[in-house]
Amino acid sequence: MSTYGTLFRVTTFGESHCASVGAIIDGCPPGLELSADDIQVQLNRRRPGQSDLTTPRNEKDAVQLQSGLERGVTLGTPIALLVRNEDQRPHDYSETDLFPRPSHADYTYLEKYGVKASSGGGRSSARETIGRVAAGAIAEKYLRIAHGVEIVAFVSSVGKVHLPTTAVAVDADGDDDDAPEPLSPDFRALLANVSREEVDKQLTRCPHPETAERMKQRIMRAKSASDSIGGTVTCIVRRLPPGLGEPVFDKLEALLAHAMLSIPATKGFEIGSGFRGTEVSGSAHNDAFVRRRDGSLGTATNWSGGIQGGISNGEDVYFRVAFKPPATISQAQTTVQYDGTPGTLAARGRHDPCVVPRAVPIVEAMAAIVLMDALLMQKARQAAASLLPPITTLPPTMVLPPKVNVVARRVNGDDVDV
Amino acid sequence: MSTYGTLFRVTTFGESHCASVGAIIDGCPPGLELSADDIQVQLNRRRPGQSDLTTPRNEKDAVQLQSGLERGVTLGTPIALLVRNEDQRPHDYSETDLFPRPSHADYTYLEKYGVKASSGGGRSSARETIGRVAAGAIAEKYLRIAHGVEIVAFVSSVGKVHLPTTAVAVDADGDDDDAPEPLSPDFRALLANVSREEVDKQLTRCPHPETAERMKQRIMRAKSASDSIGGTVTCIVRRLPPGLGEPVFDKLEALLAHAMLSIPATKGFEIGSGFRGTEVSGSAHNDAFVRRRDGSLGTATNWSGGIQGGISNGEDVYFRVAFKPPATISQAQTTVQYDGTPGTLAARGRHDPCVVPRAVPIVEAMAAIVLMDALLMQKARQAAASLLPPITTLPPTMVLPPKVNVVARRVNGDDVDV
Amino acid sequence: MSTYGTLFRVTTFGESHCASVGAIIDGCPPGLELSADDIQVQLNRRRPGQSDLTTPRNEKDAVQLQSGLERGVTLGTPIALLVRNEDQRPHDYSETDLFPRPSHADYTYLEKYGVKASSGGGRSSARETIGRVAAGAIAEKYLRIAHGVEIVAFVSSVGKVHLPTTAVAVDADGDDDDAPEPLSPDFRALLANVSREEVDKQLTRCPHPETAERMKQRIMRAKSASDSIGGTVTCIVRRLPPGLGEPVFDKLEALLAHAMLSIPATKGFEIGSGFRGTEVSGSAHNDAFVRRRDGSLGTATNWSGGIQGGISNGEDVYFRVAFKPPATISQAQTTVQYDGTPGTLAARGRHDPCVVPRAVPIVEAMAAIVLMDALLMQKARQAAASLLPPITTLPPTMVLPPKVNVVARRVNGDDVDV
Amino acid sequence: MSTYGTLFRVTTFGESHCASVGAIIDGCPPGLELSADDIQVQLNRRRPGQSDLTTPRNEKDAVQLQSGLERGVTLGTPIALLVRNEDQRPHDYSETDLFPRPSHADYTYLEKYGVKASSGGGRSSARETIGRVAAGAIAEKYLRIAHGVEIVAFVSSVGKVHLPTTAVAVDADGDDDDAPEPLSPDFRALLANVSREEVDKQLTRCPHPETAERMKQRIMRAKSASDSIGGTVTCIVRRLPPGLGEPVFDKLEALLAHAMLSIPATKGFEIGSGFRGTEVSGSAHNDAFVRRRDGSLGTATNWSGGIQGGISNGEDVYFRVAFKPPATISQAQTTVQYDGTPGTLAARGRHDPCVVPRAVPIVEAMAAIVLMDALLMQKARQAAASLLPPITTLPPTMVLPPKVNVVARRVNGDDVDV
Repeated sequence: MSTYGTLFRVTTFGESHCASVGAIIDGCPPGLELSADDIQVQLNRRRPGQSDLTTPRNEKDAVQLQSGLERGVTLGTPIALLVRNEDQRPHDYSETDLFPRPSHADYTYLEKYGVKASSGGGRSSARETIGRVAAGAIAEKYLRIAHGVEIVAFVSSVGKVHLPTTAVAVDADGDDDDAPEPLSPDFRALLANVSREEVDKQLTRCPHPETAERMKQRIMRAKSASDSIGGTVTCIVRRLPPGLGEPVFDKLEALLAHAMLSIPATKGFEIGSGFRGTEVSGSAHNDAFVRRRDGSLGTATNWSGGIQGGISNGEDVYFRVAFKPPATISQAQTTVQYDGTPGTLAARGRHDPCVVPRAVPIVEAMAAIVLMDALLMQKARQAAASLLPPITTLPPTMVLPPKVNVVARRVNGDDVDV
Repeated sequence: MSTYGTLFRVTTFGESHCASVGAIIDGCPPGLELSADDIQVQLNRRRPGQSDLTTPRNEKDAVQLQSGLERGVTLGTPIALLVRNEDQRPHDYSETDLFPRPSHADYTYLEKYGVKASSGGGRSSARETIGRVAAGAIAEKYLRIAHGVEIVAFVSSVGKVHLPTTAVAVDADGDDDDAPEPLSPDFRALLANVSREEVDKQLTRCPHPETAERMKQRIMRAKSASDSIGGTVTCIVRRLPPGLGEPVFDKLEALLAHAMLSIPATKGFEIGSGFRGTEVSGSAHNDAFVRRRDGSLGTATNWSGGIQGGISNGEDVYFRVAFKPPATISQAQTTVQYDGTPGTLAARGRHDPCVVPRAVPIVEAMAAIVLMDALLMQKARQAAASLLPPITTLPPTMVLPPKVNVVARRVNGDDVDV
Repeated sequence: MSTYGTLFRVTTFGESHCASVGAIIDGCPPGLELSADDIQVQLNRRRPGQSDLTTPRNEKDAVQLQSGLERGVTLGTPIALLVRNEDQRPHDYSETDLFPRPSHADYTYLEKYGVKASSGGGRSSARETIGRVAAGAIAEKYLRIAHGVEIVAFVSSVGKVHLPTTAVAVDADGDDDDAPEPLSPDFRALLANVSREEVDKQLTRCPHPETAERMKQRIMRAKSASDSIGGTVTCIVRRLPPGLGEPVFDKLEALLAHAMLSIPATKGFEIGSGFRGTEVSGSAHNDAFVRRRDGSLGTATNWSGGIQGGISNGEDVYFRVAFKPPATISQAQTTVQYDGTPGTLAARGRHDPCVVPRAVPIVEAMAAIVLMDALLMQKARQAAASLLPPITTLPPTMVLPPKVNVVARRVNGDDVDV
Repeated sequence: MSTYGTLFRVTTFGESHCASVGAIIDGCPPGLELSADDIQVQLNRRRPGQSDLTTPRNEKDAVQLQSGLERGVTLGTPIALLVRNEDQRPHDYSETDLFPRPSHADYTYLEKYGVKASSGGGRSSARETIGRVAAGAIAEKYLRIAHGVEIVAFVSSVGKVHLPTTAVAVDADGDDDDAPEPLSPDFRALLANVSREEVDKQLTRCPHPETAERMKQRIMRAKSASDSIGGTVTCIVRRLPPGLGEPVFDKLEALLAHAMLSIPATKGFEIGSGFRGTEVSGSAHNDAFVRRRDGSLGTATNWSGGIQGGISNGEDVYFRVAFKPPATISQAQTTVQYDGTPGTLAARGRHDPCVVPRAVPIVEAMAAIVLMDALLMQKARQAAASLLPPITTLPPTMVLPPKVNVVARRVNGDDVDV
């Protein structure tokens, strides 16, 4: 359905040619200072027309807050918001309507609902993500103010152009145990330090200038060939409190995977060492514990990606999301009509040759929504447990004193006491 | 939490040293013939002690049905089932308890709950998956009888030993557009035809005998080194009806990703062309439509993995899941105690050097649970829509006559009329 | 939270002085013809300013559909709708703000959220029900078109002025077994036949002209005394298919009770014979089965109110809801300020002296929402069960052939074959 | 379905003739000391065979804890528990099976599921409530230890025999404004002070000895007439923290109504002044605020029943539940068979002539489950809000300093400072 979350609950609405798109965000903590600007900044990073690399449509996408606030403070009640669609007319009928567009949702929406929007896949439109980005901006503001959480996503590959630091040759036939580390030290340093500002310095949103330039060329080449190209987005979350994620079905990585694969055009998700981690031995992959200067425990390597047993451990959470090449291309495609008649379809309209630069704020938004909901779940548990009398009947290694509102005490990676 | 699903709802319980583990399955269609044997067959494929490749503990894991059935027929009411734990004593205290085990859930469970089971990570125990496998066996039986759905998972890699057909050299620096197809024809043929019987012929559950032998050697090498190794499991679903998956947050691939990443030790998920698909151009990646002999539409290539816009399209659904190397190794590890004291930890007990062979039925089970729930959601919609009068005010390409209980009409891939 | 329902899911938003109030309705069956008029008709019955009996504010409350439709047909995607608030300015501060208003939500909202809207109880405003009434109108349209369901609510009491047919003297000390029937034959006839048109002929929405006149006088007396008065609303649902309601926690009467008690100012709910039914013996209360002319089974008496074991049985569902006297009265009230300082509060603004006439469409709406959701749940089950092979191993009294889309075949009560 | 709750989640299973009945309780706070005895005490109050007034079957109903605990301390993971059914054989077929029993669930279960248990209504069996009572005992223990909450239910009427203090003559035709108070001072005193011990001194669980004796006679008269009789149960909750209940659909009274109407045989629910409160004027019904000795605000009258705007206000919550006369009577009943053939049915087996004495712990259990879940919801909000910086931009009457873990500071009613 169109609702995500248990305690921080986001419900989105809208297709590309209806009156508006938007969302209701229920469960936002009361007392948060919030303005339309807090939301607009991420909508602007998502909207089309930002550069030559994206679709030339330049929609304003100005958010209108409807409820849940008074004098710039959240009331704890549902925050409704919407963005008007500039073009609200239903799509005019044309010969291309006889064809389900290859790898689009035209066909499946019709199979599912028995009726579809004239514009095609209805809710599979990228405009649906406006509601998510807005909701994510609210979640992110709370996480930042209350816990200092930082969420930064960036483009890690376009086609075969990868951030060099992620490039590890796959030896598919090899049986060599001496595997290199799943991720290079350079890439781990980038993860530890990259800022949203650095990301936005590049049109491609790849914070490695040389790679960014090659990505740009790859996208322009797809564009000039009336074709498209895929890519990946990597996201890092810093200063996340430990203890988030609900065993067993709602492990934190499961929630993140769910959220990321719900973004249009996604085909894969990996966390921490991911698919590369399957190729190394346990002795190389295990994250040994270390003592931090503040007395807390951390891990030396963090191949786990900040999550163990489905629960955050206080280290950085990082993951990568795969986006397929956009299905809309202006090249002619040989395919068949709904009734099976063979023919050739040339796409109408303008489109993005590559979605990953604009996907960056969407990935950040979905991460924020997931983490916010998981945080509230854990706060309920901790607040409840903290009222119980101390446990005296269990061995000390089984017990930790109850606490409320755990705040991450350090920025990951900078203060190992070894 | 410990519940998955909306209409087919599975709630599991149990740790490794409590009285029993099990599940309540709510929402199973009434009138299904079901016996303990239907469930036991998958539990047997999951249980430890099946071969030298797995942990030598040989637990019987005999399922006991508690409710929801009479004379071997489901009543539509909750089916409770449990498996007794052979060893129900709490773990005895030892010096190893002073250490949180690296890459285990000991530390995070204690951070989350403030108390943990003496056995360590509590619900992160592999025994928790017994309830899932049992629930999946029920879902699978319905899907097979009512819709002919086939679900087959198999091991596609162990360490660097991959099914050769999946091996495609990654040219990370290249900007070559002439990408090979994301998956080889051989591998696609294997996907189309592999059976559970073929999978079980190999101890490693890799249905390619030569690769299976090399995988076995890789696992034995890890075992003899007191180490462990990761791997991947690929799963194929055939004859799935079109129309499953709920836009926008509950896209079918999002639900599958959620379910797979909720399995212990998983680190990644990709569907269809997956991460490889991000490297090719849209013109190569788009799945052109073709007319099947039965008049229905199919796709020529299926890089989408049977899902477009989050909704199944009637083609085979296939995906791959990454499993990290098991964290429990008997090698000594340098780490620190809960209080930060440095030391060396040598794991207690016996363990699997590689989990993927036993993970195969767990992946199948979680797939079945997801698909069953998605199917019931869609049945509600279709049954409701079928009572409405025909739509006469929309253009014909926007409308399809309503129908109930869509059954996939063909086995994918064998009857393209081109 | 602000979401109701599993498959037909309604999320409302808005306070009295924000930009708009409204709702997202997710899960509406695709292919339903729907216009703003279908919704506006019930909003008009709910809005203030309809007569002298209600608050003189005359707000237009014109609904604006945002999404989920194209050319007047539902797409199966979320339907967002909103109604602009005429007065969007935050409330100006005045001395009355020092007082939590007695029996209002001012105090509890502040306790719950730590911050409250200047207008007082925020979401406890009657304007919040606009989203519900709109959602209910959509549900009702589907139920009527697809199943012929009729939902009619009416005012059954105002203060001590009751529809005479419901008046049964309570003999609190008596131990007489010869109890009269819980409801009189006249009242049962009214339930069987009353139409929304008859209800709307009376300003009080009591379809019994003489009683309606006395109710009107009672309300006017409260108004002239700067006071208020409570009342009850009774609702009847005809032609509801059997089989709705989900044991055990979501019994149909439990869902109805939940929905009704979520309406502002409600204090009680009873179904069928209700509280009166507790006073009679089982032999008088049991509903003997009878054979209808069409061959189906019905019941002779229907004290059960159309529900047995939490599941609808095909008879009329009827229930009664208690509304307290409105808390806002312009009489001066002796109370204390937030800081405990004693004082006298005289209410600001205009208000309804009695809410029940305007509550009638709200009760109908919540009933429609509940029944729509329960219907979709049951359709999923029936469609799934209908694909299974016939059960041959159970005695015939335990089995009924599977069916999909059960439609009630008769109007209750008119065709008993006895 | 068979699951209740969001954060404290109870899933029950079992019919009367299967292997066992029980529940999984997910979300219990970790670190709670809990033993089987804590649960057994309430199961004993529920079980049949307690006295001449109930069914003579004497089942032990001994609870077996399966998971979620170690050494008597909750781990925060799912607590599974079960009670073996003594008689696990399916019911033998007999002529009575040809009849759907009047006012039972036989008919509706068959309509809903297309198959039913041989014992009749399957999950409508009173044995299903065992799982609820066990779950409620756990919730109640937390509420008592952490917040001092007291929950006491008692029988307030059997047939026409009412606790005299609740008896208020209804003047159905009257238009007298000078209404008496909805509840008498004596009854309010009983509410404020009644203990579970006093309740259990009477076989009928009515804590007013004289009335209890008359109730007993009424029940014995029903029993000797092979008939049955209904009744009501009143429940009081003391020391409940303010702020519980989630606007708008999950108002606290709506959740309680849902929970109570999900108990078998219930027909009505009223809270605070309830149906009586509809007959009085607002000026008499409004609860003026008063200042307590501890500085907090309370109300002088509490006709609201401790809830305003759907949120608890710190006063006692009290409500009343209607139970119909049991449908199973050994008198012969004229009815028809499933196929419409007229006939006479005499009930098999033994039964309770009146359910209300045994319903008392069930009402308490469902109240505890509802309140526990609502409490956890509120704890999440409060803990989250408490980390935000102080609000400086709103007028002081709109803001309250954030707090975590509000504990009710007084026993209601004893310390008004007026």
